[in-house]
Amino acid sequence: MNRFWSPVVRSLTPYVPGEQPKVENLVKLNTNENPYPPSPRALEAIRAAAGEALRLYPDPGADDLRQAIAGFNGVAAENVFVGNGSDEVLAFVFQGLLHHELPVLFPDITYSFYPVYCGLYGIDYRTLPLAADFTLRVEDYLVPNGGIIFPNPNAPTGRLLPLEAVERLLEANTASVVVVDEAYVDFGGESAIALVGRFPNLLVVQTFSKSRSLAGLRVGFAVGDAGLIEALERIKNSFNSYPLDRPAQVGAAAAMADREHFDRTRNAVILSRERLAGRLTELGFEVLPSAANFLFARHPGRDAAELAAALRERKIIVRHFRQPRIEQYLRITIGTDAQCDALAAALEAILD
Amino acid sequence: MNRFWSPVVRSLTPYVPGEQPKVENLVKLNTNENPYPPSPRALEAIRAAAGEALRLYPDPGADDLRQAIAGFNGVAAENVFVGNGSDEVLAFVFQGLLHHELPVLFPDITYSFYPVYCGLYGIDYRTLPLAADFTLRVEDYLVPNGGIIFPNPNAPTGRLLPLEAVERLLEANTASVVVVDEAYVDFGGESAIALVGRFPNLLVVQTFSKSRSLAGLRVGFAVGDAGLIEALERIKNSFNSYPLDRPAQVGAAAAMADREHFDRTRNAVILSRERLAGRLTELGFEVLPSAANFLFARHPGRDAAELAAALRERKIIVRHFRQPRIEQYLRITIGTDAQCDALAAALEAILD
Repeated sequence: MNRFWSPVVRSLTPYVPGEQPKVENLVKLNTNENPYPPSPRALEAIRAAAGEALRLYPDPGADDLRQAIAGFNGVAAENVFVGNGSDEVLAFVFQGLLHHELPVLFPDITYSFYPVYCGLYGIDYRTLPLAADFTLRVEDYLVPNGGIIFPNPNAPTGRLLPLEAVERLLEANTASVVVVDEAYVDFGGESAIALVGRFPNLLVVQTFSKSRSLAGLRVGFAVGDAGLIEALERIKNSFNSYPLDRPAQVGAAAAMADREHFDRTRNAVILSRERLAGRLTELGFEVLPSAANFLFARHPGRDAAELAAALRERKIIVRHFRQPRIEQYLRITIGTDAQCDALAAALEAILD
Repeated sequence: MNRFWSPVVRSLTPYVPGEQPKVENLVKLNTNENPYPPSPRALEAIRAAAGEALRLYPDPGADDLRQAIAGFNGVAAENVFVGNGSDEVLAFVFQGLLHHELPVLFPDITYSFYPVYCGLYGIDYRTLPLAADFTLRVEDYLVPNGGIIFPNPNAPTGRLLPLEAVERLLEANTASVVVVDEAYVDFGGESAIALVGRFPNLLVVQTFSKSRSLAGLRVGFAVGDAGLIEALERIKNSFNSYPLDRPAQVGAAAAMADREHFDRTRNAVILSRERLAGRLTELGFEVLPSAANFLFARHPGRDAAELAAALRERKIIVRHFRQPRIEQYLRITIGTDAQCDALAAALEAILD
C-alpha cells in the first residue's frame, strides 16, 4: 500500500499465472503450452523481421495479420481484431463491451482472470454454478445481464459446450454481448466463428498461444460483427496504438498460413490426450471428458495438493487450484507422449 | 455507434498516431523514428529467440530485461517496470497513479495521448499553458493536483526543462506523483532518474523506440520508487500477465547492453540536428531549441499546412498538428544527413 496509488490499485486482486520456472529439466505440464514447436515458417518470418526495419513502428492496424486470420476463418478483415495475447483482447472486451449497468455473467468455475478484469474496470459480475458434472446449462444464463462470457472448451475443466447450445444461447440472448473464449477450441471443439454472420452480439476470442505453439509471441484475436470490432479498436487506440510488434505480426501471420503444421501438431496433441486419459483412468483417476490440450482429473483416494507436491518432487509440474469444488482436481497439460508417459509412471509410483 | 458498446467507448476520442505509410521511397520524417538501425546485438538476440522456446510463455516478470535497464541506470530491478512500449506504460501510470479526486496537470501543448488516457479512465485533467516561448513554468504547477505529467524534452516542441527545474518542482510538489516522460531525453537532456532515490513520488518513463532504434519492437519502461513500481505491477497483473514477448525481452536487453552503438548513433542524430537547425534558419525558419530527435520550426512567410503538403508531393513526410498555438509549426524528425539534405533542398525549392 502506498499513498500515491489510485483507489483502484488498492482494491485489486491481481491474477496469478501458472509458474514459469527458471530451472531446466522439468516436465512442464502446468500452463497448457503446446509440446510441439511453432511452424518453421513462423520462425523464419520472425528471423527475417530482425533487421533494420525494427527502427520503424509496426503497422498499427496489423493489416496483413488480420487478413491472414480473416482468410483462415472465412470472414472479412473488418471482422477481426488482434491484440497482445488473448489476455489483452479480453481486457479490451471487458472494458469496451461488457461494462454496463447489469452484471456480466460467467460460470463459477472458469478462467480466473475474468473477475480480475471486472475488478480492474469496476464491472459488476455474477457467477452461475456449473452443473455437478461441470457442464454449462444454457438456461441459467437467460436472465437480464450486461454480457455473458465463458471459455469453450471451459478452463480448467476442458468440458465443451456443443455449438448448438451456443447457438441456442445466442438466439435467446440478443440484448447483450456473448463472448465465447475459444483459447482451446482447436483441440476438439467447433468454433462459433461460423455463427458470427448471424449474430451481431457474438464475439469469439482465440489465441496463438495454444494450438499455434506461440505462447512466447503474445498474439490473440477476436472475430465478430464489425460494430463490436470497432469498439475494440477504439479502446486500443486510446491505450496503445501499436500493441503488436513487428516480429509478432509477421510470425503470427506465417503461422496462420501453415495449415499442415497446425493440423499435424494439434492432431498429435489430441491423440496423446486420449492415450493419457486412458492411462489415468487405469490408475484410478476420474477424468473429465476434455476438448482441450489438458485433462482435468481427480483421484478418489488421494489428495490433489499432495499429488501435485509429490509430482513436483519428481520434477513434473501440473496445476492445482485451491478453489471450492475443484480443489481435489489436477489440471494436466498434454505433453509429448514421452512426457505423458513420464507423468503416468510417476503417478503410478506415487499411488503405489 | 453500436448498442453493445460500453458507455466509455461512446465517449472516447482515440489517439491518432503519425502515418505509417505502406508505399516505399518516402523520406519519412514524421514519427520520430531513429534513422540508424538497432544494435546488431539486439538483432542477433531476436534471431536467436526465433526457436522452439517460442512455444513457451515468456518470463512474466521480464527479470533479465529489468536487470539490464536497472544496471544501465544505476538503480535496483525493483525500481524498474517494463511494458509493451512506453504508451502501455503510460496507460498503466494514468490508471494506477494519476487517477485521484483532484485533476492531473499537464501542459496545453504536449503529447496528445495524455488527454486520451484521461478519457479512457475517467480522469479529470487541467492543462496549463506553456510560456510564449513554449517553456514550462514550474511555478504554474504548484497548485493542488492529482498528479503532474510532462514530456522532457517536451513533444512536439523539443524544449528541455533543465534538471534543476524538475528538482524544484519535486521539492515543492510532494503530495502527488510527478511523471517525467523522457522518450527523447537521450538526445540532449539529463535524466531525472538521478533523482529517483530522493523522491518517492517521482516516476520517469523512457522508451526503446527512439534512442535505441527499436520502435518496431515495442518496449518501454518506468523507473521510480518501489512503491510506485508495485502499483504498475498490480495493474499489469490485472490486465495481461505477459505483455512482453520473448523476442522483445531479449532484443531490448541486448540493446541496453550495447553502449557503444547507443552512443555512436545518438551522437550522430544530435550532430545532424544541429546541422539541420542551421540550414533551416538560413532558409528563414524560426527553429525552437531542441533536445530531442526532431525540430519544431515555423516559417514566418509560409503556411505550415501548405509546406507539409508541398513536401509530401516531393515524397517527404513531416508532422503537422492542426492545433491552436502550433498550427504554423512543422515537426521534423532528424533523419540521416542525406535525408536532412533532401528535406532542406525540397524546402529551398518550395520557398523559392
